[in-house]
Amino acid sequence: MLGRVLNTHQQWLCQQLADRGLVVKRQVAVPDTGLDIQQAVREALGRADLILVTGGLGPTSDDLTRDLVAQLLNRQLKLDASILAGLRQFFADRGRTMPEATAVQAQVPEGATVLPNAFGTAPGLAIEVEPNPFRTGAGPSWLFMLPGPPRELRPMFLKQVAPWLPRIFPGNHQYACRTFKTTGVGESILQEKIAGPLQDLVERGLDLGYCARVSEVEVRLSASGAAAKELVGEAESRTRNLLGPCVFSQEDETLEAVVAGLLAKQGKTLVVAESCTGGYISHRLTNIPGASRFLMAGLVTYSNESKRQLLGVPEATLETEGAVSAATAAAMAEGARERHRVDVAISVTGIAGPSGGTSEKPVGTVFMALASAGKTIVERHLNRLERESFKQAAAQQALDLLRRHLLGLIP
Amino acid sequence: MLGRVLNTHQQWLCQQLADRGLVVKRQVAVPDTGLDIQQAVREALGRADLILVTGGLGPTSDDLTRDLVAQLLNRQLKLDASILAGLRQFFADRGRTMPEATAVQAQVPEGATVLPNAFGTAPGLAIEVEPNPFRTGAGPSWLFMLPGPPRELRPMFLKQVAPWLPRIFPGNHQYACRTFKTTGVGESILQEKIAGPLQDLVERGLDLGYCARVSEVEVRLSASGAAAKELVGEAESRTRNLLGPCVFSQEDETLEAVVAGLLAKQGKTLVVAESCTGGYISHRLTNIPGASRFLMAGLVTYSNESKRQLLGVPEATLETEGAVSAATAAAMAEGARERHRVDVAISVTGIAGPSGGTSEKPVGTVFMALASAGKTIVERHLNRLERESFKQAAAQQALDLLRRHLLGLIP
Repeated sequence: MLGRVLNTHQQWLCQQLADRGLVVKRQVAVPDTGLDIQQAVREALGRADLILVTGGLGPTSDDLTRDLVAQLLNRQLKLDASILAGLRQFFADRGRTMPEATAVQAQVPEGATVLPNAFGTAPGLAIEVEPNPFRTGAGPSWLFMLPGPPRELRPMFLKQVAPWLPRIFPGNHQYACRTFKTTGVGESILQEKIAGPLQDLVERGLDLGYCARVSEVEVRLSASGAAAKELVGEAESRTRNLLGPCVFSQEDETLEAVVAGLLAKQGKTLVVAESCTGGYISHRLTNIPGASRFLMAGLVTYSNESKRQLLGVPEATLETEGAVSAATAAAMAEGARERHRVDVAISVTGIAGPSGGTSEKPVGTVFMALASAGKTIVERHLNRLERESFKQAAAQQALDLLRRHLLGLIP
Repeated sequence: MLGRVLNTHQQWLCQQLADRGLVVKRQVAVPDTGLDIQQAVREALGRADLILVTGGLGPTSDDLTRDLVAQLLNRQLKLDASILAGLRQFFADRGRTMPEATAVQAQVPEGATVLPNAFGTAPGLAIEVEPNPFRTGAGPSWLFMLPGPPRELRPMFLKQVAPWLPRIFPGNHQYACRTFKTTGVGESILQEKIAGPLQDLVERGLDLGYCARVSEVEVRLSASGAAAKELVGEAESRTRNLLGPCVFSQEDETLEAVVAGLLAKQGKTLVVAESCTGGYISHRLTNIPGASRFLMAGLVTYSNESKRQLLGVPEATLETEGAVSAATAAAMAEGARERHRVDVAISVTGIAGPSGGTSEKPVGTVFMALASAGKTIVERHLNRLERESFKQAAAQQALDLLRRHLLGLIP
């Protein structure tokens, strides 16, 4: 509430719930003070079947949620010996003694179910509020208390909360949803391609949504009711035909996961040579478990000297064509491929800005190359974006060049 | 509410208000339906002096805010001729005819003040709700309706809303705040260090907050009222002494920005040799404009072969000590430094998981080294985190090793 942290929970949880056919009716954030937290939880209990509370389960004095909820529901807190033992073990595994303040995380309100936290010390808690004193005559409400850090919250939601949803919302099975992740085509062009041909389905209840990110647009087809499956199925097959190879995943995979899968399947090895993307492509690929099977090396050649030394880019090319040029990009990829004896190498060189542009090569200009047996392809793009988004866009374009190559889509 | 768009309004508006000494007590998001919007506005009028409503002022059928608020406050909507003329002009300037639906944006509730929109068609509206039927006896509430797109909302807030704040909150100029960004020390240990020594200030009104991220904890000291500056000033000097060198910034900088600043100031050059972090350290450093002045190269040596070829790690070291070992980390940093003739080189090698651990070196084990003139330092850490957080933590530890070296904090 002080603007120090961007709240990403709302989007993530809303999307997870929407994917399961549940539309969130209200999202509330309050400061870390007892009165505000208790008031928000009381109001939520007064109107909702399912309430997800995030944060405030840690060991410090501003972590108040557990106490306040127990108080509100008039339930005793009891020390759970097995949680406490787990906490001591957590610290022992790290060669440290548990700070005494941490013990508060082993307090559990009467009747609550403990949700183990595989990625942190604060366990989650689930409480069936029945009877619900704040909403008499409306059946039980379910209250989940989840840890605030996204790396703890997300796996806990997926593994410990999602499986309960069919029990809490038993009538919610007539819902269908398919998503297409695309790259290389803008949102309005995607819309022009599919909105007309899907119009009759939209009139029958299909919901057609778009979500644009940096160099990536997601198309989402969904419907509820008896005809949901049929509507979404028909829309899916039309959309697949209309969009073709700009769709890189229908399984909610990242582009790097798709590329990693193709490399692994084809048994090909890769080297990445990056200038302006500064290691971001290697970083994305090494987020995929098993990347060591295909990624032999990444070279971040940020200086001319390193382009010569590590990739063998000729001095003459750097001088006459410049470090940001088609010739340098090609020489980088070819040098990387030869020196490391791999099947494929990709390279990126460009002007991330904010300074360094010219009228011929303005800030945002990027060249990328792909070298494979007997052939090198070069592409030029212009990404007029601030520095970090520029890096994201260029990395996305280079990974997509590799994807299209591996799929045989490049003539 | 479907998770398609990340809500950045909350953070931005909260920060703007916090900078002016106003702490937001509640942030609410609801779906675009009449009942939800009206209920949320009615509740807000029941508890707040200032309410900012964003979105729902556009020309389409799901833009309901203007109508619903007028209805709720029992005020007539009247067509404002000068807004309508402005709208026609907006489209004429762009060579287009105004779509008829846009005219709805010229509707103004009785008694509302129009806030011109320099970056879009929807004007904002300010209403002094006096008397406030939802909070009798509590003085007026101020309701601002602002456009949803950030590029329209932000300038409108700064130019048209911020100047009203001193009038709405006349007593509110006494607020002070300082933040410390720390790394290498956990949240509960930080609290043990400072909570006791600051207790007397907390009793006098100091607010002490913590925000934990991966390998980074922010400590925030703030206070309101006549003694705010004195309280926060005293707390700041005590905290600085108590925390010492684990504080890397008091200016809200990232760790990579701090390290980049030190390298630039000292005129030192750097090479980064990464195994398990896979390019993430280079990526972070190259997010800083001007990184090319100090970062000569980044080597992502994901295979044993590339550790030999690019860094000269001896075959014998890899065989007897293993790729994840103190000896390999040291050889990586020393090889990188010598081959690129730089002042400093850092290296990281570890087991990101999910597989690959042993009892002696479990998943999460990471070795890092820093080679400088005549000296190599090696550190070992254990980060039991999922793959991406593991990479973040290891990168943070390596950047902090570099920071401490550059500050002369390593004996």
